Amino acid sequence: MKYKDLREEVCTINRGIVAAGLVTLTWGNASAIDRKEGVFAIKPSGIPYESLKPEDIVVLDLESGDVVEGSLKPSSDTPTHLELFRAFDGIGGIVHTHSTHATIWAQAGREIPCLGTTHADHFNGKVPVARALTQKEVQTEYEVASGRAIVETFRAMGLNPDHVPAVLLPGHAPFVWGATLRKALENAIALEAVAEMALHTLSLNTNAALPDHVLEKHFTRKHGPKAYYGQK
Amino acid sequence: MKYKDLREEVCTINRGIVAAGLVTLTWGNASAIDRKEGVFAIKPSGIPYESLKPEDIVVLDLESGDVVEGSLKPSSDTPTHLELFRAFDGIGGIVHTHSTHATIWAQAGREIPCLGTTHADHFNGKVPVARALTQKEVQTEYEVASGRAIVETFRAMGLNPDHVPAVLLPGHAPFVWGATLRKALENAIALEAVAEMALHTLSLNTNAALPDHVLEKHFTRKHGPKAYYGQK
Amino acid sequence: MKYKDLREEVCTINRGIVAAGLVTLTWGNASAIDRKEGVFAIKPSGIPYESLKPEDIVVLDLESGDVVEGSLKPSSDTPTHLELFRAFDGIGGIVHTHSTHATIWAQAGREIPCLGTTHADHFNGKVPVARALTQKEVQTEYEVASGRAIVETFRAMGLNPDHVPAVLLPGHAPFVWGATLRKALENAIALEAVAEMALHTLSLNTNAALPDHVLEKHFTRKHGPKAYYGQK
Amino acid sequence: MKYKDLREEVCTINRGIVAAGLVTLTWGNASAIDRKEGVFAIKPSGIPYESLKPEDIVVLDLESGDVVEGSLKPSSDTPTHLELFRAFDGIGGIVHTHSTHATIWAQAGREIPCLGTTHADHFNGKVPVARALTQKEVQTEYEVASGRAIVETFRAMGLNPDHVPAVLLPGHAPFVWGATLRKALENAIALEAVAEMALHTLSLNTNAALPDHVLEKHFTRKHGPKAYYGQK
Repeated sequence: MKYKDLREEVCTINRGIVAAGLVTLTWGNASAIDRKEGVFAIKPSGIPYESLKPEDIVVLDLESGDVVEGSLKPSSDTPTHLELFRAFDGIGGIVHTHSTHATIWAQAGREIPCLGTTHADHFNGKVPVARALTQKEVQTEYEVASGRAIVETFRAMGLNPDHVPAVLLPGHAPFVWGATLRKALENAIALEAVAEMALHTLSLNTNAALPDHVLEKHFTRKHGPKAYYGQK
Repeated sequence: MKYKDLREEVCTINRGIVAAGLVTLTWGNASAIDRKEGVFAIKPSGIPYESLKPEDIVVLDLESGDVVEGSLKPSSDTPTHLELFRAFDGIGGIVHTHSTHATIWAQAGREIPCLGTTHADHFNGKVPVARALTQKEVQTEYEVASGRAIVETFRAMGLNPDHVPAVLLPGHAPFVWGATLRKALENAIALEAVAEMALHTLSLNTNAALPDHVLEKHFTRKHGPKAYYGQK
Repeated sequence: MKYKDLREEVCTINRGIVAAGLVTLTWGNASAIDRKEGVFAIKPSGIPYESLKPEDIVVLDLESGDVVEGSLKPSSDTPTHLELFRAFDGIGGIVHTHSTHATIWAQAGREIPCLGTTHADHFNGKVPVARALTQKEVQTEYEVASGRAIVETFRAMGLNPDHVPAVLLPGHAPFVWGATLRKALENAIALEAVAEMALHTLSLNTNAALPDHVLEKHFTRKHGPKAYYGQK
Repeated sequence: MKYKDLREEVCTINRGIVAAGLVTLTWGNASAIDRKEGVFAIKPSGIPYESLKPEDIVVLDLESGDVVEGSLKPSSDTPTHLELFRAFDGIGGIVHTHSTHATIWAQAGREIPCLGTTHADHFNGKVPVARALTQKEVQTEYEVASGRAIVETFRAMGLNPDHVPAVLLPGHAPFVWGATLRKALENAIALEAVAEMALHTLSLNTNAALPDHVLEKHFTRKHGPKAYYGQK
């Protein structure tokens, strides 16, 4: 195995999304990229997580999208991951799940507003909903178009994917990313938690909102040059 | 034991519905059919799952409904299973539980609308509510009539049980099936998840709905001749 | 130990209410009666469940209410248990918890309507709310008065405690019982499940209700001379 | 290690807040004070709980706020803990988490009303919301100001922190305390439970409230000179 470390990391985090309670049945997949080598690795399609081994992980070329290592068929969502890795060059890993509460917001077609510091610690503002696909996109190039719609939505809304590392596909579920795959997993866990809390916060107070200066404070406390959270 | 494999499978999946969090106390049972032999096997009535052994599983004749192997009394829901196995010849296994959120929809007497791709991956459209039983049916032939009401409802609504492998009994709980008993278990897990998400999706957006072309795309991505999910 | 078996059973079920997820911190207690000996046994006050041993269980005389075996102080709710054991002579065990959803209905001061067969399998009709205590009762004889209010409520409503083995103390939490302590535990588990489902059923359909003939059918399927559920 | 016992206790309870299900990722911290020595100990910033050891715990001087033992950086919330230890001299430990339901109320900016005896057993009345910080406070001295706002709120509302051992920071999450750190953990567990129950109680009955004499009875049953709960 040439890409042993990459495949081990992807195997570990695919099991990690299950251990974190984000995945039912086989509804989820994680991928990581090695930008120097120009390849990314992803879960194979429809394989149970409990029996997943590093050698099951499929490695693909970033440019051509062809499989370069591994004998299994990659996740059916691979073209979406590929679009994101190509367009967002700050991201090192992607996690896709149907985690309950993030999916609820996706099904409702509603962006998740920033209602608290838990949200602000991970997402610099609301988590957006990608534009809906056209009927033709759905029928002819569903997974590629899903990735493209995410990229277009971030550009149209002027969002920085390094600062807002998640999106909701309407009627579907979230895609989440991060500078590393481990960070993507943390962001996926955070997204599920803030999605659950936002749902009930609005039922207690329809006008709930976090002031902009608190959002700014919390995001910069953990991210960027002024960060002072953690040991560094 | 003549039907050793069948009884082992039924024992395993009866424990599986508990492990999946779908069952409280003894509220659930699973059955599987061997169509070549013309028999089906089901959980005995009121026996705790933790002590369930293959030899406790009861085997019955599909035609006569008589016990052909096993010394315990079969589940009191056996006549319902029998009706479904007789009428829906594409199904290999049936799972009945009182899983929390599917039962909530059943108690509310409301069909579960298709609000997302998680739903569409398993159910080709809404999950219907069977017609209510008459008072006489309830009093004289409750379990048989429950099965008959499901079959009549599917016929009246023009639903294909292979494409919509679940139903809600009003005021009661779901029955779920599949081409195999393992598939029935997966569908029961999926039903519980989509029931929970649908409940809260509608609280965020009463007009939520999945476009028909996305429903069609997701169902055919996993089912039928154009399926491309998984390793086959 | 004269009452070894009784104390072991009470110890086991006190741990059982925790294992069933019905108890947070020390908010719960279970008791059982030996009617032939005229004694009942109950959890000591404020002792953690994980270290609870049969010799910690306190045995009291049914008539005098005095401790007859055990060196610890009995649960502060003991007078409530005593009132119930004295008034309802068909019950063999009592479980008191602050289980989340049953407590939600108690805090709301609302009886739990029978909305489905899960409810009807355990409770022959709605689970009632006991009358509120007067200020004087609260201040001078709180725990005794709580038991008396339950008994009075059942008599005033013409309810049979063997058929409706639970009650909600308004602003407080449920008391649940059964012919044996193990049955009381099962009823407490069932109560929590039906309380959760009823809460959300009404949010989907404010007019939800189970027809009387289905309620009757399900209760008698499991209880009384016509029962045909289980192996007997 | 001079403060071995203190650091071990703080390490144990930091793991305890995770075991109690109150913490996601690293969103939480616990601290304890040794008032005789004039020092308090707290979790280091951003360290995973599973690998936390007593020697990772940071000890600080109560007066100067300087680190006196430990080589890691203390939690970024340390200045908030310091303010509370200085102002509330009856408290021995502090727990800060983003536990789901308490955080929901904090995000909604709503105090948690006392709706039941579970609440009254731990909090002598509603759990208040601290005043919002000014934009300048957020930008220049966020964590210190958070502590100061809590203290000011308790004084303005005439609340006794020994009787109401918790507060909600608006848009953020709860801070909880107790006479000992173990009591603080118990109060944090209780707060999460009552926050969840209050949310749903109000959805069933918007007018729900616990009469004052029941609140008084339950609080004094467990606290103060007339307490008769537990073995003492």
